[in-house]
Amino acid sequence: MASEKPYLAVTCTAPVNIAVIKYWGKRDEELILPINSSLSVTLHQDQLKTTTTAVISKDFTEDRIWLNGREEDIGQPRIQACLREIRRLARKRRSGDEEDQLPLSLNYKVHVASVNNFPTAAGLASSASGYACLAYALARVYGVESDLSEVARRGSGSACRSLYGGFVEWQMGEQADGKDSIARQVAPESHWPELRVLILVVSAEKKLTGSTVGMQTSVKTSPLLKFRAEAVVPARMAEMIRYVKERNFQGFGQLTMKDSNQFHATCLDTFPPISYLNDTSRRIIHLVHRFNAHHGQTKVAYTFDAGPNAVIFTRDNTVAEFVAAVRHSFPPESNGDKFLKGLPVKPAPLSDELKAALGMDPTPGGIKYIIATQVGPGPQVLDHPHAHLLGPDGLPKPTV
Amino acid sequence: MASEKPYLAVTCTAPVNIAVIKYWGKRDEELILPINSSLSVTLHQDQLKTTTTAVISKDFTEDRIWLNGREEDIGQPRIQACLREIRRLARKRRSGDEEDQLPLSLNYKVHVASVNNFPTAAGLASSASGYACLAYALARVYGVESDLSEVARRGSGSACRSLYGGFVEWQMGEQADGKDSIARQVAPESHWPELRVLILVVSAEKKLTGSTVGMQTSVKTSPLLKFRAEAVVPARMAEMIRYVKERNFQGFGQLTMKDSNQFHATCLDTFPPISYLNDTSRRIIHLVHRFNAHHGQTKVAYTFDAGPNAVIFTRDNTVAEFVAAVRHSFPPESNGDKFLKGLPVKPAPLSDELKAALGMDPTPGGIKYIIATQVGPGPQVLDHPHAHLLGPDGLPKPTV
Repeated sequence: MASEKPYLAVTCTAPVNIAVIKYWGKRDEELILPINSSLSVTLHQDQLKTTTTAVISKDFTEDRIWLNGREEDIGQPRIQACLREIRRLARKRRSGDEEDQLPLSLNYKVHVASVNNFPTAAGLASSASGYACLAYALARVYGVESDLSEVARRGSGSACRSLYGGFVEWQMGEQADGKDSIARQVAPESHWPELRVLILVVSAEKKLTGSTVGMQTSVKTSPLLKFRAEAVVPARMAEMIRYVKERNFQGFGQLTMKDSNQFHATCLDTFPPISYLNDTSRRIIHLVHRFNAHHGQTKVAYTFDAGPNAVIFTRDNTVAEFVAAVRHSFPPESNGDKFLKGLPVKPAPLSDELKAALGMDPTPGGIKYIIATQVGPGPQVLDHPHAHLLGPDGLPKPTV
Repeated sequence: MASEKPYLAVTCTAPVNIAVIKYWGKRDEELILPINSSLSVTLHQDQLKTTTTAVISKDFTEDRIWLNGREEDIGQPRIQACLREIRRLARKRRSGDEEDQLPLSLNYKVHVASVNNFPTAAGLASSASGYACLAYALARVYGVESDLSEVARRGSGSACRSLYGGFVEWQMGEQADGKDSIARQVAPESHWPELRVLILVVSAEKKLTGSTVGMQTSVKTSPLLKFRAEAVVPARMAEMIRYVKERNFQGFGQLTMKDSNQFHATCLDTFPPISYLNDTSRRIIHLVHRFNAHHGQTKVAYTFDAGPNAVIFTRDNTVAEFVAAVRHSFPPESNGDKFLKGLPVKPAPLSDELKAALGMDPTPGGIKYIIATQVGPGPQVLDHPHAHLLGPDGLPKPTV
């Protein structure tokens, strides 16, 4: 038996993903098994990512975790489920293959630190990138090489889709134990290079129904959700995969919008009803349809998750004009210079015809800022020791 | 044959109705046959009504119509459909029963004048009371005594429900010719005396998708609407009729809210999506659920038609407290003295517990005013000649 190293640190990054066929509702709360399959686009980590360091050491006396610099309760059930699952997989691997034994003890405690490079205020589901990154980092330090769908999924359902780049399907599976409820890549990030993503961060006023509780209520009370999951989504999954493979933006964009609308429809059919869209969200929807109508084709598509922010899909040749239309309809209030983040977008003139076609009274300050990004790769390992968020003592570095 | 009178004038009034199981979508555009049955509550004409005078005279050279004092095109297809249908029924009656022949010629032209006692700005569907009143008045001058569902329905689908007081069902029917698509009274206006209705008129900013076009798009594009009409509404109709008969407010209120929400869900599932609810509507929904949660029972229920205004159902012993809660959450902006119209509502104190339970930041001016009313009777004939909106010359009286 090899002598055990006293200390191992791994740092990874993982991406945010945006569903274009939506996941809403679990058939098993404990295992986090969904009532329908879903499909997402992985966003580029240059703009949005979680970074996580996992360290195991014989000197640690307990598991600990820091999120965005603050220590959190490691006892949270979902974090515990991930830890339990990764250790189970690690044990399974060792017992199955003596030769491939790892140098470090499975009994070593782990310290984890995780940071997002995007503010929570952006309303982006940080749980997906967060749990994907946690699963990926834990797998590296504990020497697990099997599919991590289950580990990530136990943290947050949609996290399993952040384990891959490009276009990712989460197959709902049929088994009661969830072994076949896994993520797989439909097409890599290089597949559709002209695709662009704009996140329109909306000024929101109120806290929302959390998605965990929201889905539970929807599953219990919405007859439309049950119908959607059983009778609508299967065909839409097949259709969406085809559009992605064919790089058919018309089809992709229209189905993305329809599925977002249907998800929010099932939220409204929930009792009491759930409303994630606000008046600004609805103005964005209106803007997109008017923009497309003006051009006589679907050049831009929206999707909304459990919040009022819009995620816009378009192609590189349309970004500048659409951003100009957004600026026109939602004039930036105070932070005009910081209105646009991420990928550079050239200023573009807005034709009088298009302005007239939009037919909206401007809503100053309705959109706080835009993040311009694109499709990106899956989780990455950062090799440079400077990347670690935890020092050799297993505590957060002062700069974090 | 009796000698023909040269002139006959009839003036009627008809009520507004509010659906608690919603009608949305036609299976026949021409005959106005719905894809599902619906159920409504007839509102009292002391607060909301249409008044219509129909005059036939041998001296008139053409059919003419005045709405709210302004002459309109009598050639509008839906008005023409009503006129054609009423004359068909009148001819049928005469040919069937010579004894019962009427004194006036069917060939006499008709003049019609119609006014609403509520502003269009109230966002209440004036087409229902308007076409019910037109059908009722025409039937009287042309001597038609058969069921008027079809005549009213040809003007506006939901108008057939305004032909009766109390609680009214519009049975969708099965026949292709629509003969069995008729309204019938489920319970009279005296059935549930403690029931009260509050119309919360919301400050709206934009024009909406008209319901005719909206339904067409929904029928064409929403998979959820089709499912709702076929699989959800039939059971809900039976359930709602039971609740009404039992005067079960818990059941009635909850199902009313669920059905309103599901109707708006199908609007959102339409492509492009239709949004009739705005942020104020959603705040009202939230307020109602918080109010009920505070009381541990459904004391108040909302329903929304094709616009942002809420119609609230409650019982007499809850009106004062709920109005106080509305005043607290939506402080009147300028017209504090005109905030409450219709039935008198006593001021009521709002407990600190309830204020805290509502947990909302006040939205000044979000609600323009409230109309307090109750369940009321069907169309009425006004016998006094002063009631006529048209003078002996067949033209609108100067005071109108």
